[in-house]
Amino acid sequence: MTTSTLNDILAQIRAALKQEDLTRAASIIEKLRPADQAELFSELDEETQAALLPKLAPEDSADILEELEEEEAAELAAYLPTNTLIRIVDEMEPDEAADLLGDISAEQARQILDGMEDPEDIRPLLLHPDDSAGGLMTSEFLALRRRATAGDALEAIRQWRPNDEFIYYMFVIDPNQRLVGVVSLRELVVADPATPLSEIMNPEVISVKAGADQEDAAQVMFRYDLLALPVVTDDSTLLGVITIADVMDVLEDEATEDIQRLGGAQPLDRAYLNTSVLTITRKRIGWLLMLFLTATLTGSVMRLFQGELQAVVALSIFIPLLIGTGGNAGSQTTATVIRALATGDVDINDALRVWWHEARIGLLLGLGMAIAAYIRAITWESDPALAMTVAASILGIVLWATGTGALLPLIAEKAGIDPTVVSGPAMSTLVDATGLFIYFTIARVMLGL
Amino acid sequence: MTTSTLNDILAQIRAALKQEDLTRAASIIEKLRPADQAELFSELDEETQAALLPKLAPEDSADILEELEEEEAAELAAYLPTNTLIRIVDEMEPDEAADLLGDISAEQARQILDGMEDPEDIRPLLLHPDDSAGGLMTSEFLALRRRATAGDALEAIRQWRPNDEFIYYMFVIDPNQRLVGVVSLRELVVADPATPLSEIMNPEVISVKAGADQEDAAQVMFRYDLLALPVVTDDSTLLGVITIADVMDVLEDEATEDIQRLGGAQPLDRAYLNTSVLTITRKRIGWLLMLFLTATLTGSVMRLFQGELQAVVALSIFIPLLIGTGGNAGSQTTATVIRALATGDVDINDALRVWWHEARIGLLLGLGMAIAAYIRAITWESDPALAMTVAASILGIVLWATGTGALLPLIAEKAGIDPTVVSGPAMSTLVDATGLFIYFTIARVMLGL
Repeated sequence: MTTSTLNDILAQIRAALKQEDLTRAASIIEKLRPADQAELFSELDEETQAALLPKLAPEDSADILEELEEEEAAELAAYLPTNTLIRIVDEMEPDEAADLLGDISAEQARQILDGMEDPEDIRPLLLHPDDSAGGLMTSEFLALRRRATAGDALEAIRQWRPNDEFIYYMFVIDPNQRLVGVVSLRELVVADPATPLSEIMNPEVISVKAGADQEDAAQVMFRYDLLALPVVTDDSTLLGVITIADVMDVLEDEATEDIQRLGGAQPLDRAYLNTSVLTITRKRIGWLLMLFLTATLTGSVMRLFQGELQAVVALSIFIPLLIGTGGNAGSQTTATVIRALATGDVDINDALRVWWHEARIGLLLGLGMAIAAYIRAITWESDPALAMTVAASILGIVLWATGTGALLPLIAEKAGIDPTVVSGPAMSTLVDATGLFIYFTIARVMLGL
Repeated sequence: MTTSTLNDILAQIRAALKQEDLTRAASIIEKLRPADQAELFSELDEETQAALLPKLAPEDSADILEELEEEEAAELAAYLPTNTLIRIVDEMEPDEAADLLGDISAEQARQILDGMEDPEDIRPLLLHPDDSAGGLMTSEFLALRRRATAGDALEAIRQWRPNDEFIYYMFVIDPNQRLVGVVSLRELVVADPATPLSEIMNPEVISVKAGADQEDAAQVMFRYDLLALPVVTDDSTLLGVITIADVMDVLEDEATEDIQRLGGAQPLDRAYLNTSVLTITRKRIGWLLMLFLTATLTGSVMRLFQGELQAVVALSIFIPLLIGTGGNAGSQTTATVIRALATGDVDINDALRVWWHEARIGLLLGLGMAIAAYIRAITWESDPALAMTVAASILGIVLWATGTGALLPLIAEKAGIDPTVVSGPAMSTLVDATGLFIYFTIARVMLGL
């Protein structure tokens, strides 16, 4: 649905709300698809949301709470009476319900669980951290025995009528609940109904441990093109299933976080325009201040060489050019290396190869930039010694920046820090200070200061 | 599969190759999953790849060519004899095969099509650009008539035995081939076999036009949690289907491109370590030189204020600090806005709201940074007028940087340029020059120069 269509519908809803006709507003929303419902809904203020939600069918309310950003959903839930919330949570996917209960007060969560028809789907999911494979999985899945036939399995699906469209894989377990195989709905349909599952199933089933990082689970599904990934305990007991819909959300969120961190800001928990000015400021100022403190290092380097600066004021003209080029060359390298780490093209064991790759690239880039810098310097100041100083410095700075840019993300990864944190602004600041040191040292030698 | 396991297997393959035992090397590879096969394969040099590929079963070779980066696959194909290639392409998914044929020479592509058993699956796909919805779709899909029953449909699936695991949705067409509904395999299985499809199908089927951008198609599938998206002509004739596996690749590639562009480098077409030093240098140097040229603007600003610099050399000490903070504040803003654009949280019509959001954030951040800058300046130079100059400048620079950072990506989007191109390094360079202008102008007034 296009933005303009959504805006038209939003106008209709606002008109209905103005006439205090909540029922009409609700009926407009109920006609939409869940993603559109959530988008429109998050445009309304919280009071209106809380008034409108109980007017919707519980399935629609459940869809909206699932589609909203987690923080928005939790805030809205805190506004709603417990009875309303119980009816809605009963309709939510168990994994989404568990995430929501983890985000609201423990007291409210307990009341909801106590009031629910079937809390047993959700309780075990509450034990796993949100960002683990166990936190991502749903407990709604179909586990079948090996001796069951294809016909039995199809009958079980007919009986079960799962409401999740995404369940197209059935898992086969042994008498101890251990995962032993996987069979797709397609294979069941194509097989002779009398065939036992042990003959149709693929015993080479890929699974993850419940404690695994959700990003790793997403990477596995992505790499092997899986629509469903079973989650198991250490002794292979089947606990739940991660669906492709869950994983698409993880991949998009991770990419968003990486990009925001590359820009030097802590990731936001909710949509940009719905995040308050104060929250965004709080998420950015710490980083700006830290970079400011490290940047004072650059000032200290300049104070160290104040004599040289006083002697040749023209030296200062090239400072932004030199540190700018160093920062840019370094950013190019870190962006490439970070993404190669994220997609698995590169890992820590490749450190030496990556560094050697970047050292040669840095040499070529540095030589190219040195020529450009010499030409610029000679036309500005027509002093060959100064021009040579600038050219030699830019070669040194680019080499240093690409080398540092290659190793910093790998060192961070090794140390268990998110590599995006050390790149971008942080790397630029480091390269600024050390770049100036290179520049003034070369100037001291070449200009005989 | 972990990296160390892959490395062990790679060592086994290398050992087999050393003994020129291609059959053993092939049999090791054939036991692996396609993604692992491709990863190992791309570690080998092209000559070995070309020698090994004909030894593998055509299905395995087809899997490997599908999983390799497009450029690598095309180069490898150019090495292979046409007869071998025909057998392999026959086994590939039609959309992947069409992509490959588009990447090799027209002459070789024609010979392959002429030699294939069933080129009619591929020919129509060659008409669509690679990065359009039509280029992403497969022509392997099941289209059913409205009057067919659920039982007929299941029988059709049994007859058809599609090799693509991802086809769990069947599309319903009218006698003019126009798309009128969608039905899932789950619904077919659950329904009474005698029910006509017109009663089970969902007539509200979401589709895209063949000419639509592949990113837009991916966003639609992602937004509405679709496993398959039908591609139609302008008059709704069903042409093909995009599967979730195709779209996951698009989303990962797009995120990679965004991150590489944010770092100021043109995206790479193949895995990082497999891209030559020369190619990477070529992709980066243009951008570095362009930024260098714009950065000379900063030098020009400094030359303009050379008198002031000569009079108060201490002014130069704060230059890296001020332009660094401006660049960082601007990057934080652009990264957030670009990602909000990519995920659809924000669009061009929100420009004013985004600017107003960032103006207030900039004011708060600027005030915070001004206090920090005043303290730093007074402890370094103990000159209150200079410290006030630095503090006032940083407030002005941060306000300017957040405002520019908010609007630049939106202007780029409006102008049809990828917003990531104008952000990061480009924005820093712009903010550097203008930031210095703000600084020296304030210094001129406050220090009476």
